[in-house]
Amino acid sequence: MTGVKHMKWWGWGVEGVAFNHENKPAMAPFVKEAVGLDLTKPAIAPMAFEDLDVPASQLSDKLKSALTKAVGETYVITDDMDRVVHTYGKSLRDLLRIRNNVLPRVPDAIVYPADEDQVHAIVEAAVDADAVVIPFGGGSNISGSLEPRADEKRQVISLDMGRMNRVLEIDEESGLARIEAGVLGPDLEQQLNDKGWTIGHYPDSFTHSTLGGWVATRSSGMQSDKYGDIADICKGVRVVQPGTTTVVRPLPSTSTGPSIREMILGSEGRLGVITEVWAQVHRQPEQRVVHAYFFPSFTAGVEAMREIAESDASPSITRVSDARETAFSMATKKAGKGFGQYAEAGLMKFLQVRGWNLDEMCLSFIGYEGSKTHVSMNKAICDRIVKAHGGIGVGTGPGVLYDQKKFDTPYIRDFLLDRGAAGDVSETAAPWSKLIKVYNSGVAAVQKAYEELGTKGWIMCHLSHSYHAGACLYFTFAFVYDEETALEQYDVVKRAIQQSFVDNGGTLSHHHAVGTEHSPWLEQDISAGGVAMMSGLFQAVDSGENFNPGKIINEG
Amino acid sequence: MTGVKHMKWWGWGVEGVAFNHENKPAMAPFVKEAVGLDLTKPAIAPMAFEDLDVPASQLSDKLKSALTKAVGETYVITDDMDRVVHTYGKSLRDLLRIRNNVLPRVPDAIVYPADEDQVHAIVEAAVDADAVVIPFGGGSNISGSLEPRADEKRQVISLDMGRMNRVLEIDEESGLARIEAGVLGPDLEQQLNDKGWTIGHYPDSFTHSTLGGWVATRSSGMQSDKYGDIADICKGVRVVQPGTTTVVRPLPSTSTGPSIREMILGSEGRLGVITEVWAQVHRQPEQRVVHAYFFPSFTAGVEAMREIAESDASPSITRVSDARETAFSMATKKAGKGFGQYAEAGLMKFLQVRGWNLDEMCLSFIGYEGSKTHVSMNKAICDRIVKAHGGIGVGTGPGVLYDQKKFDTPYIRDFLLDRGAAGDVSETAAPWSKLIKVYNSGVAAVQKAYEELGTKGWIMCHLSHSYHAGACLYFTFAFVYDEETALEQYDVVKRAIQQSFVDNGGTLSHHHAVGTEHSPWLEQDISAGGVAMMSGLFQAVDSGENFNPGKIINEG
Repeated sequence: MTGVKHMKWWGWGVEGVAFNHENKPAMAPFVKEAVGLDLTKPAIAPMAFEDLDVPASQLSDKLKSALTKAVGETYVITDDMDRVVHTYGKSLRDLLRIRNNVLPRVPDAIVYPADEDQVHAIVEAAVDADAVVIPFGGGSNISGSLEPRADEKRQVISLDMGRMNRVLEIDEESGLARIEAGVLGPDLEQQLNDKGWTIGHYPDSFTHSTLGGWVATRSSGMQSDKYGDIADICKGVRVVQPGTTTVVRPLPSTSTGPSIREMILGSEGRLGVITEVWAQVHRQPEQRVVHAYFFPSFTAGVEAMREIAESDASPSITRVSDARETAFSMATKKAGKGFGQYAEAGLMKFLQVRGWNLDEMCLSFIGYEGSKTHVSMNKAICDRIVKAHGGIGVGTGPGVLYDQKKFDTPYIRDFLLDRGAAGDVSETAAPWSKLIKVYNSGVAAVQKAYEELGTKGWIMCHLSHSYHAGACLYFTFAFVYDEETALEQYDVVKRAIQQSFVDNGGTLSHHHAVGTEHSPWLEQDISAGGVAMMSGLFQAVDSGENFNPGKIINEG
Repeated sequence: MTGVKHMKWWGWGVEGVAFNHENKPAMAPFVKEAVGLDLTKPAIAPMAFEDLDVPASQLSDKLKSALTKAVGETYVITDDMDRVVHTYGKSLRDLLRIRNNVLPRVPDAIVYPADEDQVHAIVEAAVDADAVVIPFGGGSNISGSLEPRADEKRQVISLDMGRMNRVLEIDEESGLARIEAGVLGPDLEQQLNDKGWTIGHYPDSFTHSTLGGWVATRSSGMQSDKYGDIADICKGVRVVQPGTTTVVRPLPSTSTGPSIREMILGSEGRLGVITEVWAQVHRQPEQRVVHAYFFPSFTAGVEAMREIAESDASPSITRVSDARETAFSMATKKAGKGFGQYAEAGLMKFLQVRGWNLDEMCLSFIGYEGSKTHVSMNKAICDRIVKAHGGIGVGTGPGVLYDQKKFDTPYIRDFLLDRGAAGDVSETAAPWSKLIKVYNSGVAAVQKAYEELGTKGWIMCHLSHSYHAGACLYFTFAFVYDEETALEQYDVVKRAIQQSFVDNGGTLSHHHAVGTEHSPWLEQDISAGGVAMMSGLFQAVDSGENFNPGKIINEG
């Protein structure tokens, strides 16, 4: 046993944890209405692992022996379960393929290094054998960054960083922690919290993603408004490359340009194996609250967030759900929970009296962190702006709920998939002036795709991660799928929304990376010249294409 | 006439503007004491331009004709004055060389494009002729980023961006402005101010540096604590490369990794010609104040700035001069100006009574911007921290003075050079935990160098540009030089301080770029692997080495 735990092979999270709707009385009627799905019907059970056709490992004795020499026998794994778990991430495409026994290429071995020297030994052995190395963190990626190329003829090694999971040191004066790249979110946060610190990085995938994965995919967390994206948090990094370790020392800022740090960020394993990160960490705040608000429309909410971004306030979270996501949130809350002292029915009546169209109503969260004075002063600024845009505060009840539920969303996808609806997410970022256009176009593109497919579907969205110049729009979509053509149906929907992003001034992804899922839009995002620069960089570091080839730059 | 103005060929700034000490009664005695220089002696006049040996232009008729076709006859200049002005930046090395008639290689022509199409035409003509293209902004660089290689056999074109100086549009909703790269600081700020906006970027070179230059060198301004470094401000960019224009669209954030934007930042012309920048701009603040403080020691001041960086306060400027810089500041103020309502003598007496050692006293500035409430709340936090570290506030008088004088410092260097003292600056950034060590080591290294040289010298320093994880230390040094060996003397001092930076955890430069001046320390800064990545990138974009070759990566 390697001691490294993984998510279940067929879906999100760990065995035994699942979403269920029994305690959420509004959900079944809501889903019935939204996509026509009957949640009371029995779910489809995923196929048995034994029924998968897992291609045999092609690991040569020679490479196996070199890898064994590098990490020891216990940590070179060739069994089918581990190999399947390391084949894909957790995108809808991944889940559909694995549930349909689509496994054209599975890594030939999983190797678990204990330290940087062992990573070096693995890398040298792999390059000597002209094998492919794919670094693996928590396996939560949804952009196709982890899979071997289907037609890969060379041996494929999945390099699992799970044993390298320690906070090595905290520079308390500088607020910098040196951390091994394979640590999972909760483990990292526990080690930091024990000493009074936090990294403040909470992506939706937090429970099953790693620090190294965050850096390799340019991740962003829910509290990025305060703590920054991982690109801001990562101040130094160590990367194992053939024959060398590139070291970016922890520095607050530097004019040593073209930034090596920013080449590693988002490199998805193509520039080597990230072994250590110097991350910016913060003392745990004196106070931390998430307040909920309602806006009469999505446009009003977006405009308020823009004004907050321009103001002197510095909240930790700014989030506005559109009307559909608001309705979904209210439908998936547990019976009896919710708006605390505000009786929900009473609130709705109050808003109706004030002339609100409840179908357009949008739920919003604003988070505040810091000293009590800082929190109250920031809240005062935000409250005033919310009010000026017709919004109303409803206290901290829903915020507490949001905080508790925030990492559960991916489980819902599995739940729906078992019941006939395929869902996934697509997100982008754009300047404030283009956000509503990106929003409307995204919704329209997906609805048009549903029409073309002749299926009933759902799309909802929230704004999050505000910056001075713009924000992220995060879309969730789900549709009733056809067993035979589900992947093709997904492609139609996914292509439609991605194309609408780049056509309207958005990027291909704000925090889910490029991988293979988004690479068809790379050139439209960064121009042909940008692709040539990236390609030249990959070629210079990895002329043999041994490091996660096929990712980021589209191979058609 | 091209209509583009330049600094004088032999020094900083424009003809007719110079530093003088007549109205600063404390300066002459101070300089006498510090480095033994007699300011009352007549100054050395710079040599006459006519006495320079300017090598003849090697521009071929063919390339001249192609360039003329590209931009028109008026904008292809081969006269000696323009060529000399475009040979160097304004480092001490540059000034010493130009004053000593050291001009091994001077650009063969200066070309002034009016728009991006013309830049393309220049680039294509230059690459066709296998000529070298060196983009030129304001010419304020002090890292050797602008000079042709001394042994360059090919034709050299200095591509002056001075005609491309317009703010093209402001996206008011997003706080983003599209701006031509050749605009000088004051012109840019004027165009923005006229519409109620500011870029908030004020490097010391502000009056004579350009937006494109800031991006190409990863510049930082005095108010970076609020507005960010240029790397934060630059949200999109257009770069002309042979056969293509790389376009980084304006985006608040993106996960499209390795960041093309961050490859262009700090590229010093090696990846093509920056023609346009999408910059983050801000509404002019309701209030803007700079408060002065005194600390009993540099360590106390640095520790206070660290605590402010960790606090909820978000000042626009954090700056602490060491005791020597404090003494210098007080010696260079005009008679009768200074500490406003605080009679200086009275203040000093007060501090002495409180037990301060006035020789250790350090002047500090903290800037506040925003609404009146924001300013007063932030000031309250900072005041409390200053007080906890033994500091004392002395009002806004010195801050007003600082604001007025802030762009004058480079003139002092010319003034001293004319009078026998050679000075320049070196700056770095390091984590908070290492700052005092970097400070002490830097001072000791330079003092040891003076001893070795047997010359009398001065070194002073301030902390500025605070970040969560650390800050910048900015050293100014000056020594009485020997006419014959001044450059070698400078090398001894410069090498000593740069080596002490990288040896003690600092970067080779926080905001002055690498160029040729700092390239010997590149590998120690970013490791051999980092240099290989950078080199591979340059090679991929510019295999013919036509774009500012020899910069950033050390050629020995």
